[in-house]
Amino acid sequence: MSDVVHAAKRLLLGRPVRSDRLGHTLLPKRIALPVFASDALSSVAYAPDEILLTLAIAGLGATVISPWVGLAVVVVLVVVVASYRQNVHAYPSGGGDYEVATVNLGPKAGLSVASALLVDYVLTVAVSISSGAQYASSAIPALRGHEAEFAIGLVLILALANLRGVKESGTAFAIPTYLFMFALGSLAVVGAIRALTGTLPMAETAALEVLPEAGFEQGLVGLAGAFLVLRAFASGSAALTGVEAISNGVPAFRKPKSKNAATTLLLLGTLSTTFIMSILLLARATHVHYVEFPASQLLRDGVPVGEDYVQNPVIVQLARTVFAGITPVIVLIAVVTGVILVLAANTAFNGFPVLGSILARDGYLPRQLHTRGDRLAYSNGIVALAGGAIVLIWAFDAQVTRLIQLYIVGVFVSFTLSQLGMVKHWNLLLRTEPDGRGRDRMKRARIVNAVGLGLTGTVLIVVLITKFTRGAWIAVLAMGVVFLVMRGIRAHYDAVRDELALGPEPATARALPSRVHAIVLISRLHKPAMRAIAYARASRPSVLEAVTVSVDPEDVVELRKQWEALDMPVALKVLDSPFREITRPVVGYVKSIRRESPRDLVVVYVPEYVVGHWWEHLLHNQSALRLKSRLLFTPGVVVASVPWQLESSIARSNPQAWSAP
Amino acid sequence: MSDVVHAAKRLLLGRPVRSDRLGHTLLPKRIALPVFASDALSSVAYAPDEILLTLAIAGLGATVISPWVGLAVVVVLVVVVASYRQNVHAYPSGGGDYEVATVNLGPKAGLSVASALLVDYVLTVAVSISSGAQYASSAIPALRGHEAEFAIGLVLILALANLRGVKESGTAFAIPTYLFMFALGSLAVVGAIRALTGTLPMAETAALEVLPEAGFEQGLVGLAGAFLVLRAFASGSAALTGVEAISNGVPAFRKPKSKNAATTLLLLGTLSTTFIMSILLLARATHVHYVEFPASQLLRDGVPVGEDYVQNPVIVQLARTVFAGITPVIVLIAVVTGVILVLAANTAFNGFPVLGSILARDGYLPRQLHTRGDRLAYSNGIVALAGGAIVLIWAFDAQVTRLIQLYIVGVFVSFTLSQLGMVKHWNLLLRTEPDGRGRDRMKRARIVNAVGLGLTGTVLIVVLITKFTRGAWIAVLAMGVVFLVMRGIRAHYDAVRDELALGPEPATARALPSRVHAIVLISRLHKPAMRAIAYARASRPSVLEAVTVSVDPEDVVELRKQWEALDMPVALKVLDSPFREITRPVVGYVKSIRRESPRDLVVVYVPEYVVGHWWEHLLHNQSALRLKSRLLFTPGVVVASVPWQLESSIARSNPQAWSAP
Repeated sequence: MSDVVHAAKRLLLGRPVRSDRLGHTLLPKRIALPVFASDALSSVAYAPDEILLTLAIAGLGATVISPWVGLAVVVVLVVVVASYRQNVHAYPSGGGDYEVATVNLGPKAGLSVASALLVDYVLTVAVSISSGAQYASSAIPALRGHEAEFAIGLVLILALANLRGVKESGTAFAIPTYLFMFALGSLAVVGAIRALTGTLPMAETAALEVLPEAGFEQGLVGLAGAFLVLRAFASGSAALTGVEAISNGVPAFRKPKSKNAATTLLLLGTLSTTFIMSILLLARATHVHYVEFPASQLLRDGVPVGEDYVQNPVIVQLARTVFAGITPVIVLIAVVTGVILVLAANTAFNGFPVLGSILARDGYLPRQLHTRGDRLAYSNGIVALAGGAIVLIWAFDAQVTRLIQLYIVGVFVSFTLSQLGMVKHWNLLLRTEPDGRGRDRMKRARIVNAVGLGLTGTVLIVVLITKFTRGAWIAVLAMGVVFLVMRGIRAHYDAVRDELALGPEPATARALPSRVHAIVLISRLHKPAMRAIAYARASRPSVLEAVTVSVDPEDVVELRKQWEALDMPVALKVLDSPFREITRPVVGYVKSIRRESPRDLVVVYVPEYVVGHWWEHLLHNQSALRLKSRLLFTPGVVVASVPWQLESSIARSNPQAWSAP
Repeated sequence: MSDVVHAAKRLLLGRPVRSDRLGHTLLPKRIALPVFASDALSSVAYAPDEILLTLAIAGLGATVISPWVGLAVVVVLVVVVASYRQNVHAYPSGGGDYEVATVNLGPKAGLSVASALLVDYVLTVAVSISSGAQYASSAIPALRGHEAEFAIGLVLILALANLRGVKESGTAFAIPTYLFMFALGSLAVVGAIRALTGTLPMAETAALEVLPEAGFEQGLVGLAGAFLVLRAFASGSAALTGVEAISNGVPAFRKPKSKNAATTLLLLGTLSTTFIMSILLLARATHVHYVEFPASQLLRDGVPVGEDYVQNPVIVQLARTVFAGITPVIVLIAVVTGVILVLAANTAFNGFPVLGSILARDGYLPRQLHTRGDRLAYSNGIVALAGGAIVLIWAFDAQVTRLIQLYIVGVFVSFTLSQLGMVKHWNLLLRTEPDGRGRDRMKRARIVNAVGLGLTGTVLIVVLITKFTRGAWIAVLAMGVVFLVMRGIRAHYDAVRDELALGPEPATARALPSRVHAIVLISRLHKPAMRAIAYARASRPSVLEAVTVSVDPEDVVELRKQWEALDMPVALKVLDSPFREITRPVVGYVKSIRRESPRDLVVVYVPEYVVGHWWEHLLHNQSALRLKSRLLFTPGVVVASVPWQLESSIARSNPQAWSAP
C-alpha cells in the first residue's frame, strides 16, 4: 500500500482498534433500538404505499379495504415478534436463524437460511436506499431522473461509515431515528384528534380519479380480485423485515443480552404496528390516492395528469394534509423519513458482516471474511454488501416497486425454517425436562413458535405465488446460487483438511531429509547475488552450487570471467536453454537432482529486488516471480527468496514503523 | 496457466522453436521482397487517392496536375532508396536508422529516431488495415459502416499469424504480393496500350463534377493553391514508408545480408515508381474523380450525388475502365489490392518487435521485451503493436484520410536524422582512410546521403507545416511521450545498476552472517506444517523455533495441546496480536531478533499450499502472501516457502512434463 492510500485509509476509517477494546463497542438498548430496529420501522415509509398502489390497480374503491390488508400484516408482525422473543432467549449467541436452523434441522437447513438472509440483506439495502432516494427527489426537483446515481452515492457513504465501526454509526444514527418516531407519532396523534373533531381536510390527491387496469373495471371481484388483495398483503409484508436482524445481532447488545434484545423487539413491534395502522387509516380518512404510474393511471376531470405530475409518497401527502399550512413540520417529517430510510440500510450493514463472519468460521465462505479488518467491523462483508446493493439499484434503476418484488422471500424462508427449528428445539427439551413449571413454560413457548411457523409458512407461500414471475424468481435463483457456492467452498475446505490431516502415525511425517542440496540462481554478479551466495553459505548445506541459465552465450562468458576474477568460493554451473527460457531449465535441473537423490532436500535461493513503486515491478523480478511459482509445484523443494532492498523501497517500508511497540 | 489456455496457445501459435534453429527462419530475397516491401508497394493503393482527393478540394481542373505531384514524390523516393542502399552496406546489423543515429549523433538522436519509428510502425498498421477495410467494403456492401470493427478483426488475425513466427508468415504472404505486382503491372501495360491505340474509355466518374471548397472557386491559385499542392505532396509521400523497414530488417535476410537487402531496396524503388506514375497518368487520361466526401462534393447534372453513392478507390475505378467488361480481372485486381494492404501491415509486425527488442537490450524498454517468447518472434512487441493500432483504428473510425494526417512524420524524422548520421559517418571515415579509390567511393556515398538529407529534411518540414494542426501534432506528442518514457526507463535501470554494482572491495560483500536464526510459521499442526518443521531442522540452524500468532485464544490452547501430545522437537512461541493481524506481529518479532543480534541471519519458513485452480487462490494463502511480501522489506531476512502440493495441483504441473529431456 502506498503512503497516499495508507493516509487516505487512516483519514476515512480512523485508527485501528485493539481486540481488548471490543467490549466498548457493545450497544445499550437506547442505541440498539435505532441501530437494529430502523429497518423494520422505516419500512412504514414504503410498505403502506405498496399496499395502496397494488390495490389501486382495481381502481378507487379497492383502496378502501387497505386498513384490513394492513391489519393482516400487523397480525403476522405480532406473531413473529412473539416467536422471536423465544428465539433470542433460547439462542443468545447471535447465530440467529442460521444457528437455530443448523442446530435443530441440520446443516442444509442452516445453509438455506444463511443463503436466504444474505440475499435479503442486500435487498434491504437496495430497497431502503431506493425509497430514500424517492423521498429526496420528491423534495428536491433537481434529483428527479437521477435517483439511481443518488442512491448509489448513499450506499457508498453508508459503507464508509460502517467501515469506521459500529459504535460510531450507532451514536450518529440514534438522533434521526428518535426524531422519526416522534414525527410519525405526532402525525398519528394530531391526525386522529383532527379526525375526531371533524377538522381533518381531504388529501391533495383526493380529487383525482384512479384508472383501473384492464380486467378490474368492476373493482375487487372474483379470483383476480382476491389475488390482487394477496399481492397487496405480500408487498405490505415488507414491514416485517428487520425482526430477524435483532435476533442475529444479540451479541452486539449490552448484558443481559437476551433480555435487552427481547425488550427491543417488543418496542419495535409496538411502534411498527402503531405507525402502519395509523398511516393506512389516515390515508383512507383523507382519501389519499397512490399509484405505480401516476402519469397515466391518475385522471383529473377524466384526463390523465401527464408526465409533469409529481406524486408525493403517502407520508408526505398525509403530513401536508394533517399539518396543512405549517410548512416547517411538513418539511421535518419528509426529511426525517428520508433520513431514516437511509439509516435503515445500516441494519443490514450491521447484520450482514456478522453473518458472513460466522459462515466463514464454519468454512462456508473464504477464511479471510472471518479475519477482522483494521477496524472492529468486518470490512470484507461490508464491501461485499455494498457491492451487491449497488448492482441491484443500478439494474432496477432504484425503483422501489420493482425491487419489492424480489424482497421478503428470503426473510420468510428464514422465518419459517427458524420457527420449525424452534418447535423441534422445544420438543427435544421437553423429552428431558422433569420440572413441571419448566415444562409448562416450554409448552407455551412451543405453541407460540408453532403459530409463528404456521403463519410465516403461509405468508411465504403467498409471497411466492403472487411475486414469483414478477421478480421473486431472481431472489430464489440468487439464493440457490449462494447456497451452492457456499456448499462448494465448505466441501473444498473439508477435502483439503482431510488431505492435510496427520495420519495415525505422525512420526513418519517427521523424517528429516538426508542432505540439503542448495542452489543459488545467478544472472549477474552484483550485490544481491553476493548476498544470496553469502546467505546460502551461512546455512552450511551439504552441496552448494551457483546456477545460471545461458540465454545469451556472450553474457555467460562475461559472467565466468568475473567469477574467476573474484575467486568465488562456490562452483558455477551453466544450464543450457534451447528455448531461451529461464524457468524450464531450472525446474528441469531441480527435478534431475531429485531423481538422482530422492531423499535430498533442494533449497533454491533466488536473489530478488524489493522495489518501492508499483511500476518498478514491471521493470524487475518478472522472471524470478514466474520461476518461483513454477518451482513450488516440484515436491521436495524449498524456495528461499533473498531480498535486496532497493533505495526506493526504504520509504515504502516506513508506514510499518508506527506499529512498533 | 491452465490446461485449456496451454492447449489453446499450442493450437494458435504452434510448437516452440529452439534457438539453434534461428538460422532456418532467415529470408531469401524472393520471400524478403514481399515481406519487407509490401508496405511501400501497397501504399500505391492509397497514396495516389490522397493526392487526387487533396487536389480535388480546388475542383476538377486542379487534379490535372496530379502526375506532377506524383513525380515529386517519385524523385524523393529515388533519392531515399539511393541513400538507404548506403545505409544497409555501412550498418548491416539491423539497428537501422536507430543504430546509425546513435553511433554518429549520440544516444539522444538515436532515441528520437526510435520513438519516431515506434509511433510510425503503429500508424503503418492502422493506415494499411483501414485502407484494406475500405477496399473490402467497396466490394462487400454488408461491411459498409462496419469498417472499424472489420479492421480491428484483421489486426487481431495478423497479430496471431505473427505470434506463430516470421517464417510461416513470409511464405504465406509471398503469393498475394506477387499476384499484386502482376495485377498492377498488367493494369499499367494494358492501360498504356489502350491509351496509345486510342481505345481507352473514360472512367465511370468522368461525367461527374467536383464542387470546389469555399475559397477555391478559382482553382489552384495564390498562396492557398500552393499550400494545397504541398499538402497533396505530403499525403502522397506516404508512398515512401517501408524503405526504412528493409534497413531495420537486414539481419532477417540470407547472406550476403547487406547485398541482398540493397538489391531488394532497388527492386522496391523501381516497382513503386512504376506503379505510382502509371496510376496517376491513367487516372488523368480516364478522368477519374476522387474526393473525401463524395455525397456532397460530387455533383451529377449540378445536383450532389447523395449518401447512397458509393465511391470506388482509384485502382478499382481504373480496373473497371481498362478492363471494362472482363469482370474476373476487375475482381482479381480489387481482391489482391485489399489483401496486399492487410499484408503490408505485416511489415510493421516484422520491424516493430525487432526494434523493441533492440531498445530493450539497450535498457530503454522493460527487459522482458528482449527475452524471446515461445516462438522466435518477439511476442510482447507484437502484442503492443496490435494494441496500439487497434486504439488508433477505433479512435479514427478506420478513416484513411484522417489517419494519414498523423502518418509519415515519424518516418521522415527517422530519414532525416539517419541521413545526417550517414554524412557524419563518411566524414569520420574520410579522416582516416588513406586509399584514394576508397576515398572516392566514400565521397560519392557522402554526396548521395547529403542529397538525401537535404531532400528528406525539406519533406519533413513540408509535412509538419501542412499537417500539424490536422493531426500530425498527435503523432509528435506521442513521439515525445515515448521518448520521455524510454529515457526514464533507461535512467531507472542505470540507477539500479549503480546501486547494485560491486564496490572496489568486493570481499566485504562476502562476509557471512554469524548465526542462522530459523523461524517456522505455524497456524495449525497438519502435514504442511510438519514438512516445514522437518525442512527447517534439516538445514541445522543455530536457533530454531516455531511461531504462531494468537488471533483466537481458543485456537492457541488447542495448538499447544496438540504440540505436547505429539512431543514436538521444536519450541512453540506464541505472538500476541492485539489488532487481530498476522503480518504485523511476525514482522515486529523478526525485527526484534535483528535488533538484538544484528549479525544473525533470520530465515522464516512459511508453509504454503500449492493449488491447481485460480479460484483456490481466493480460499488459501492470502495471509501467507501478504506476510511474505512484507517480510522482504526487512533487511537480513530470507523468506523460505515450503510448498505443499495439494492434489488439485498435480494435474496443473503436468504440462511441464513434455519439456523433460
